[in-house]
Amino acid sequence: MKFTVLHSDTNTKARTGIISTGHGSIETPVFMPVGTAGTVKAVHQRELIEDLHAQIILGNTYHLYLRPGTDILHQAGGLHKFINWNRPILTDSGGYQVYSLAAMRKLTREGALFSSHIDGSKHLFTPEKVVDIQRIIGADIIMALDECTPYPCDHGQALKSLNLTHDWLGRGFDHFIHTKPLYDHEQSFFPIVQGSVYQDLRAKSALEVSGYPADGFAIGGLSVGEPPEIMYEIVKSVTEILPVEKPRYLMGVGTPVNLLESIALGIDMFDCVMPTRNGRNGMLFTRNGIMNMRNNKWKDDFSPIDPESNCFADTWYSKAYLRHLIISGEILGAQIASLHNLSFYLWLMGEARKFIKAGTFDIWKKGMVEKLNTRL
Amino acid sequence: MKFTVLHSDTNTKARTGIISTGHGSIETPVFMPVGTAGTVKAVHQRELIEDLHAQIILGNTYHLYLRPGTDILHQAGGLHKFINWNRPILTDSGGYQVYSLAAMRKLTREGALFSSHIDGSKHLFTPEKVVDIQRIIGADIIMALDECTPYPCDHGQALKSLNLTHDWLGRGFDHFIHTKPLYDHEQSFFPIVQGSVYQDLRAKSALEVSGYPADGFAIGGLSVGEPPEIMYEIVKSVTEILPVEKPRYLMGVGTPVNLLESIALGIDMFDCVMPTRNGRNGMLFTRNGIMNMRNNKWKDDFSPIDPESNCFADTWYSKAYLRHLIISGEILGAQIASLHNLSFYLWLMGEARKFIKAGTFDIWKKGMVEKLNTRL
Repeated sequence: MKFTVLHSDTNTKARTGIISTGHGSIETPVFMPVGTAGTVKAVHQRELIEDLHAQIILGNTYHLYLRPGTDILHQAGGLHKFINWNRPILTDSGGYQVYSLAAMRKLTREGALFSSHIDGSKHLFTPEKVVDIQRIIGADIIMALDECTPYPCDHGQALKSLNLTHDWLGRGFDHFIHTKPLYDHEQSFFPIVQGSVYQDLRAKSALEVSGYPADGFAIGGLSVGEPPEIMYEIVKSVTEILPVEKPRYLMGVGTPVNLLESIALGIDMFDCVMPTRNGRNGMLFTRNGIMNMRNNKWKDDFSPIDPESNCFADTWYSKAYLRHLIISGEILGAQIASLHNLSFYLWLMGEARKFIKAGTFDIWKKGMVEKLNTRL
Repeated sequence: MKFTVLHSDTNTKARTGIISTGHGSIETPVFMPVGTAGTVKAVHQRELIEDLHAQIILGNTYHLYLRPGTDILHQAGGLHKFINWNRPILTDSGGYQVYSLAAMRKLTREGALFSSHIDGSKHLFTPEKVVDIQRIIGADIIMALDECTPYPCDHGQALKSLNLTHDWLGRGFDHFIHTKPLYDHEQSFFPIVQGSVYQDLRAKSALEVSGYPADGFAIGGLSVGEPPEIMYEIVKSVTEILPVEKPRYLMGVGTPVNLLESIALGIDMFDCVMPTRNGRNGMLFTRNGIMNMRNNKWKDDFSPIDPESNCFADTWYSKAYLRHLIISGEILGAQIASLHNLSFYLWLMGEARKFIKAGTFDIWKKGMVEKLNTRL
């Protein structure tokens, strides 16, 4: 994997770049639609390519490990082939879902023991095993096993957790460099910075992970309930330490405003379920603000969902029709809202890249942030 | 509306034809995907046009009346505009859903009083009112209010019900000819033959409805639990009476085999929720038989869903992937299975038209029926 910084903003720490992978290039800053169990929910792969122009999607190791399972994925020749997706894929380590979804979990130095939320079966994720699983999945970018601290979390607990995360990182990286990809493309391994909301722990972690000769670095454990100002402070302090020549991935973040503010702090990559999950619930992010499609005010608004959008769904269907579908619990409502929100997120990243190149990112961002927070 | 019979099969009563409507022509025999509440579930309108080449879709008056309601549909300029669908639409009268879905229903000579399954609100459907509602919806073909008898149903009950249906037909037709379309296209009104499984009642009903100067005629009250042989006998006896120069619509039917057998008996139009509903549950109809995608045997079958299909979903995705999506309850599974089944149904109708024209429909049908019943 190769990362090239193309333009660095003079007024902020924003930059544009290109990540080259075995499945093609990614222009950064980039938003990665979440394809949980091998599918970006309610969106066809053809739509991801032809309508959304998604450059990379994310898969969740926890979900893929449980279903369809590593046997099937291995026989298929990896996730790319299984889901027929020839562009880059990033997988998380599964750690986050173990904490948030599993019926039972127990952390030891060895790893994370958990019960499947599907059938209660017991499984152990170790730093080595999640590398093996991600070798089988075959994502272009794979993640270290970490512990994601909850918010709030006291300093002692955060330090203890961070030590475990760093211990696991060492084992995971060691296993990564002593194993090989199973398919005909390269894989990159990203360490993850943790440390909760504590500047000293985050600095310690950023220094620690920067010591690894990795292709990129992630920041985890944010957007878990802390105020956004604290998140931005932490991101700022971490990106000041992480190597400038490597991509920085802020995991699980966030709202459109979160994305723009974090780009200004030097983040290159994002993923979040928000555009798809909130979309399914009828919440639309637009360039003019947030629309709750369940709101009565849309019931007789027969104008297109987003007349300025390039995505077919935004001009094919009206606000009133989408409201009807969402209110009626129709699957097509989830399909349209997911397409709209992803289209908007990807458009916003494209605009950010454009304004960084033009040198006017900070002015543009200020105007956008004001609009994006509006409730329509 | 104009109907032209193009080819009449010499060995069966099958025929091909063209129905001309204000929203374009329909080649018959035709299958109409069911677009319940203004959406063919899990399928984009763009896919209906570009991938499935659907000629006409069906809407349910009961559902559309309750949500989004006639006010919204009227303001939108009718259902075509509301859902952005420029091809023909047929709406049922709502009677069937009153019997099958409503929380409470009470039939009188006046009409059908019922409680909404959504919010319990009380409504009255009269033969006149369902014409008014269908004027507001604006479908190209609209249906008379009828009573659909359950199976089994004794002769006395069936006769009593039939008399009510005929009484309602008179009132509905009278109201239809004394009202005008609300939008800039013509509407046609189809009477419905009832009479349960009794040949004498069906003959009486077929004669009665044939007396109306309608553009086409429907057969209702079948595929409600009676053995298929009885259904075919009834269809046969009714199509012998209905005017040969008008299209015949067999409501709510059925399996691919039901369609082919009924085409041989002179049916021109079909609708059924089976391809979409069964698809969402993981049942696929194919040219080689029926596949239950939940079956373990597909878990490592990485071949395309249907390599011979022209629909992108059938070649884009594998059987193993679709099985994974269905097992995991992923929306994309419902999307793919619905596309596949509708694509197959529409392909089957196209093949039927082709073989009728070629004069080899009966031989082709015999071979297909054997394969279609296979469990793969």
